[in-house]
Amino acid sequence: MPNGAQALIRTLVDAGVRTCFTNPGTSEMHFVAALDSAPEMRAVLALFEGVATGAADGYARMADKPAATLLHLGSGLGNGVANLHNARKARVPIVNIVGDHATHHTKYDAQLQSDIETIARNVSPGWVRTSGSTQALCSDAAEAIVAAIGPPGQVATLILPADVSWGDGGRPAAPIPPARPPLASPEAINAAAAALRSAQPTAILLGGRALREPTLLAAAKIAATTAAKLYAEVFPTRIERGEGLPPVERLAYFAELASVQLAGLKHLILVDVKAPVSFFAYPGKPSYLVPDGCQVHELAPPSSDIPAALEALVEALGAANAKPVRQKPSRPQLPTGELTADKVCQVIGAILPEGAILSDEAQTSGVTLAAHTAGAPRHDVLTLTGGAIGQGLPVAVGAAVACPDRPVLALQGEGSAMYTIQSLWTMARERLDVTVVIFNNRSYAILNIELERVGAAGAGPKAKSQLDLADPNLDFVALGNGMGVPSVRANTCEQLAAELERAIAEPGPHLIEVVIPSAFTGWKLKAMPYALQALGTLPQPVAKAIKNRLAP
Amino acid sequence: MPNGAQALIRTLVDAGVRTCFTNPGTSEMHFVAALDSAPEMRAVLALFEGVATGAADGYARMADKPAATLLHLGSGLGNGVANLHNARKARVPIVNIVGDHATHHTKYDAQLQSDIETIARNVSPGWVRTSGSTQALCSDAAEAIVAAIGPPGQVATLILPADVSWGDGGRPAAPIPPARPPLASPEAINAAAAALRSAQPTAILLGGRALREPTLLAAAKIAATTAAKLYAEVFPTRIERGEGLPPVERLAYFAELASVQLAGLKHLILVDVKAPVSFFAYPGKPSYLVPDGCQVHELAPPSSDIPAALEALVEALGAANAKPVRQKPSRPQLPTGELTADKVCQVIGAILPEGAILSDEAQTSGVTLAAHTAGAPRHDVLTLTGGAIGQGLPVAVGAAVACPDRPVLALQGEGSAMYTIQSLWTMARERLDVTVVIFNNRSYAILNIELERVGAAGAGPKAKSQLDLADPNLDFVALGNGMGVPSVRANTCEQLAAELERAIAEPGPHLIEVVIPSAFTGWKLKAMPYALQALGTLPQPVAKAIKNRLAP
Repeated sequence: MPNGAQALIRTLVDAGVRTCFTNPGTSEMHFVAALDSAPEMRAVLALFEGVATGAADGYARMADKPAATLLHLGSGLGNGVANLHNARKARVPIVNIVGDHATHHTKYDAQLQSDIETIARNVSPGWVRTSGSTQALCSDAAEAIVAAIGPPGQVATLILPADVSWGDGGRPAAPIPPARPPLASPEAINAAAAALRSAQPTAILLGGRALREPTLLAAAKIAATTAAKLYAEVFPTRIERGEGLPPVERLAYFAELASVQLAGLKHLILVDVKAPVSFFAYPGKPSYLVPDGCQVHELAPPSSDIPAALEALVEALGAANAKPVRQKPSRPQLPTGELTADKVCQVIGAILPEGAILSDEAQTSGVTLAAHTAGAPRHDVLTLTGGAIGQGLPVAVGAAVACPDRPVLALQGEGSAMYTIQSLWTMARERLDVTVVIFNNRSYAILNIELERVGAAGAGPKAKSQLDLADPNLDFVALGNGMGVPSVRANTCEQLAAELERAIAEPGPHLIEVVIPSAFTGWKLKAMPYALQALGTLPQPVAKAIKNRLAP
Repeated sequence: MPNGAQALIRTLVDAGVRTCFTNPGTSEMHFVAALDSAPEMRAVLALFEGVATGAADGYARMADKPAATLLHLGSGLGNGVANLHNARKARVPIVNIVGDHATHHTKYDAQLQSDIETIARNVSPGWVRTSGSTQALCSDAAEAIVAAIGPPGQVATLILPADVSWGDGGRPAAPIPPARPPLASPEAINAAAAALRSAQPTAILLGGRALREPTLLAAAKIAATTAAKLYAEVFPTRIERGEGLPPVERLAYFAELASVQLAGLKHLILVDVKAPVSFFAYPGKPSYLVPDGCQVHELAPPSSDIPAALEALVEALGAANAKPVRQKPSRPQLPTGELTADKVCQVIGAILPEGAILSDEAQTSGVTLAAHTAGAPRHDVLTLTGGAIGQGLPVAVGAAVACPDRPVLALQGEGSAMYTIQSLWTMARERLDVTVVIFNNRSYAILNIELERVGAAGAGPKAKSQLDLADPNLDFVALGNGMGVPSVRANTCEQLAAELERAIAEPGPHLIEVVIPSAFTGWKLKAMPYALQALGTLPQPVAKAIKNRLAP
């Protein structure tokens, strides 16, 4: 008879959970010892829990099934919270396993004792359980797995006391079949169809699982039939895009711009997404971005069958034979000479290989990335779903583990990179095909913008110093090499193109640092739309509308 | 009239909270902008929240007053949890300020929205408050400060919504005078005195604030009068030691050894510490380490005046004029040749400068450090109070900020270092006089021991690989230089001595990496006492007792 840990791993494997991102401690040693009992389970060690949780997120986004984590008590869970938060917000499934002291040990309040469940509720509001016995462990685990899968997906936290893990008499549990997601209500389909037929300005906002090829094609057929505008949420969990797929404009991060994108709408149809709100609040500015007089229609709740809802809408509109707009191939020319953030994005657009996975946390430096990669060969983009920075490198780890045959590019601002820089070591250890591009503008550039946006202008030297990362400069070539990832600095567009091609061609991870000026140096709120227009981010009509609205 | 943030900073400064360890985001921009309004407030930027919270811990341990933190919403707090946990366990005061969305924004559940209070309760069970208005903010802050100070000290978490921060009409609040801590009860003093007079084997276990010079001297007078044994808790928050101070034996981390230290006791007197328990639970082994038949006496609860309680005990025993044993000066000889963990500790003992602050997270590699530094010039040692690793480098940052005139040595295992490696950047930015020694044995060495201790022996290659940090090797010279800290590798004892002397003499931070075999390579549970004896960790009689007990 296996012990608890062995039975648990068997239960995970049998349910298809075959990857575990780990940072174990003493209370997890029996789980670790049990790994060899299940050849199907791959254990990927991280040097920091935020790497493990973010990797589990990236894995599930690409594998469409959960990985497990293995974390060490409340403090280990704490270290993993930021990236579990990102997964929660995006409804990404994770089986989050947190070791605990033996049940008979907790009463002594030893050094590492803390209230694990209270932390877990922040990221797992829907499913937290401390398994009470070796006998119950595997049925608890089977429930955790099916709870994680959803839909909607979630982070399900299973707390594993050490004695439950080491106890004898573990019994692997059979997988619980996920419930079939309900269909959208006919009323909701009809209401959306009516809005789309109304000839009033209407947009469809796609999020969550609605940004994959089948749903994109359905939405594009509707758009072709009704002239509805298609938008994607600000930070997609996973969007399939590029040559041959329907192009979708993303809502802007800056509320000032998103408001312009949404201006004049009379109907907004939500598909696996919430009504758009501002990322942060700003004095005197609205948080809710849907314009007055615009009706909001939820096509189907997140727990429902989203692709079926869109298909039903296609049927209702008689759009089955409509011809969706598909992205034509186009690449930017390779730029030359000195690097800027925009030119780095151009180089990436010019080189991006077929089937690439882009983990995008380039922040302000990546503002033109979407424009420059729009017509590149088909690829996936994974973005900062919950706003907790330090997600991009771990997500790249997980995506590369999930998709060993696809090239992964992690486009990463230097400030965000430093939260989970330990990811590089796991990339090297697992020989992952990840090319990391560090956009180093030596500042928290976004905060320089936000300082003005919140109305805290006129900041003094101490305030400005809080946003400045130039003293001392971070040397990512040293950091990457220090963790076993071959790393170089590119100083020109030509060098960057050559290094990028080499990195993609060679197996294993690579890091390329580019030192660039902030994309918004000297930025002023009123000037932003022009800057964005000049940078080619926004479609011409939107940029023009902004210009008209903001021009003095 | 100042805004909320300006009034808050004024309130902090007026109460003596003049250092803030920060990692701000958009919701904290008004706090950041207000920094220039108070020249007395020093803001120290960290690249990761765990650095900020650990630095606040180290600062308070040395300054004997709290610093503030500045964290960004629930995810930023999550990243800071591990080191806040360590502070909580040691009752170290921290004013933990966590920015939140504007109160009117929370209902939209924007990307970074999460339940901050639920996480905060893990580390601030005694004091969490979300400030509801600009008018109430400063009185909330004054309460947070006095709650943090205690005694007992605690992490008091003040959640600061953005609109409360940016709102007009802030009114700085006057400091609330801390309550005078109550005196120990006469009954408790008398009970302890009776135990000490009983001629039965008795020990005094000192923890918390009882390991500073005045309390150590009082305890040593009692020991000189009564033949009681003095012990220090396993992981002291701050212990003053070295030449001229009473030497105190620390309880061993391994329960097997601590049990031997405590064997035969009939009375154990607790001073600002709990009864000793095993750090982790192990199958079939007791968690509670006080031997059967030993009476436990709490001299004074943590909220009381600990030095006064010891003085009262001195009086009760008529020990005021007793002559305490004081440590005689002694240094190990400088070893030569190839490095081992033990020889590194010898070099440190041979060179340790007067007034040094040792932040000790060297884990298994540092097992002989206490023995080799016992007779060094007077110094302070700060240890891993709550067991959440990744504390040593941030604590060194905070200690150096608190004590700019004292040399700080951070002795750090490589595995633990990687949790908060971003600390190096803050050391460089602030030109802190910290010498970091990285003990790199290329493994989670402690877990190799724990794997055997938990009875999970016979682990296979996958399990063992989870404890191995050799693929790829971490290069701390590259990592340190990459964050602006001059870094070298020492390959021999002679090189280490020369580099250590240079690092201590030169201003600003330095890093020295030593690559060494694990201190316990080939370790077996039964062999450990002999190994420890050979390494000189334990006093001869204790080692002998262990040998006798465990010998076949």
